[in-house]
Amino acid sequence: MRMLYEGKAKQIFETENPEEIIVHYKDDATAGNGEKKGTIENKGVLNNKITTLIYKYLMKHGIKTHLIKTINERDQLCRKVDILPLEVIVRNVIAGSAAKAYHIDEGTEVKEPIFEICWKDDNLGDPLINDYHAIAFGLATREELDEMYAQVKKINELMIEMWDHMGIRLIDFKVEFGKTSDGEIILADEISPDTCRLWDKETNEKLDKDRFRRDMGNVEEAYEEIFARLEKKED
Amino acid sequence: MRMLYEGKAKQIFETENPEEIIVHYKDDATAGNGEKKGTIENKGVLNNKITTLIYKYLMKHGIKTHLIKTINERDQLCRKVDILPLEVIVRNVIAGSAAKAYHIDEGTEVKEPIFEICWKDDNLGDPLINDYHAIAFGLATREELDEMYAQVKKINELMIEMWDHMGIRLIDFKVEFGKTSDGEIILADEISPDTCRLWDKETNEKLDKDRFRRDMGNVEEAYEEIFARLEKKED
Repeated sequence: MRMLYEGKAKQIFETENPEEIIVHYKDDATAGNGEKKGTIENKGVLNNKITTLIYKYLMKHGIKTHLIKTINERDQLCRKVDILPLEVIVRNVIAGSAAKAYHIDEGTEVKEPIFEICWKDDNLGDPLINDYHAIAFGLATREELDEMYAQVKKINELMIEMWDHMGIRLIDFKVEFGKTSDGEIILADEISPDTCRLWDKETNEKLDKDRFRRDMGNVEEAYEEIFARLEKKED
Repeated sequence: MRMLYEGKAKQIFETENPEEIIVHYKDDATAGNGEKKGTIENKGVLNNKITTLIYKYLMKHGIKTHLIKTINERDQLCRKVDILPLEVIVRNVIAGSAAKAYHIDEGTEVKEPIFEICWKDDNLGDPLINDYHAIAFGLATREELDEMYAQVKKINELMIEMWDHMGIRLIDFKVEFGKTSDGEIILADEISPDTCRLWDKETNEKLDKDRFRRDMGNVEEAYEEIFARLEKKED
């Protein structure tokens, strides 16, 4: 199979069907726009399983995603989409780059979720932009942005509830959307401890990639813990 | 008179009327969030006159502003407002920080104007934010933002036409808005070569503060030229 694209945490392969791709999950981890590089043992396997469980839950609740089926420990069969060059970030609690940029204590709750879009471009450093930039630079249309915001609002509501049932606070998360060949905007990419900040409700212990970013140790254990709680949860 | 506030280019004084203030225009110039400091001879006098002429034009066309009257060469009597802690930037052509941030050639026209809001805070470096941040951080309400965007759209259209009649392209500009004691959002601050990028239509010569920021020389002459063209223009 020909590799179509290699990202920091995944590889994308073509299939015999031009409408479908294979997403392969790697153990590689990066942080700070690639400045820090490493490996989180078994991360690919866990993130594949975690994304699959979350996607199934979201799909059951009406969210359309690119996932067709999970093939094996590291591979998913997905619909081929044109990924919009936008990272869509949802913040329920201030943490990470937002705490730093706005001098707000990490852990500060916001009354209404903050939605951010960043221009996915490694050379630019994935800068925060607004809707006017996205439209002017041809990254998305007004209609595509509206559709994205509507979906991400619903995804956030569904995920807050889902994680809460597992004793976890959803601090923030990042998603990406893709456009299908018939112009529909659907959820793509992964949802995992790589792309969410997840804090234990009781202890505030971080159960996400910040353990890698900040050299906190017990990185693999955090990913295992998230998977274990997801597996246990009732549907 | 007691000074209420001193900014980089202006001082604000109280008056006997609690609803009115004096805005005093200085010759001081800064760039790069205060990293570069200097003086542009006679700038205060020119910017007072330039702002007055532009504000009169905008007011004639239905824009509400804080300007009551111009008192002397360096002072304006204005309505006292609570300045919203937002810089509202309009970009018709990419230049300056946007060219740098997004690796787009300076001078690139955008199809639709880009509106940006930045959080006016020197400690943060006036970062770009979006409407969700502004609302979550209590900087403005949804209604105030909508009113600001509606006004700034109209101001841009009026200014593009005004400058065009003087042989000048309005590349971008920054404005600030204030809230009156009865909750109305009106245009405040100055509009001048300190706050606009103005390029000669024929030659693309810069007639604005970029001559100071970039050590291009003929800074005073540029401000004089802008004032001369404004004074000559028919109403």
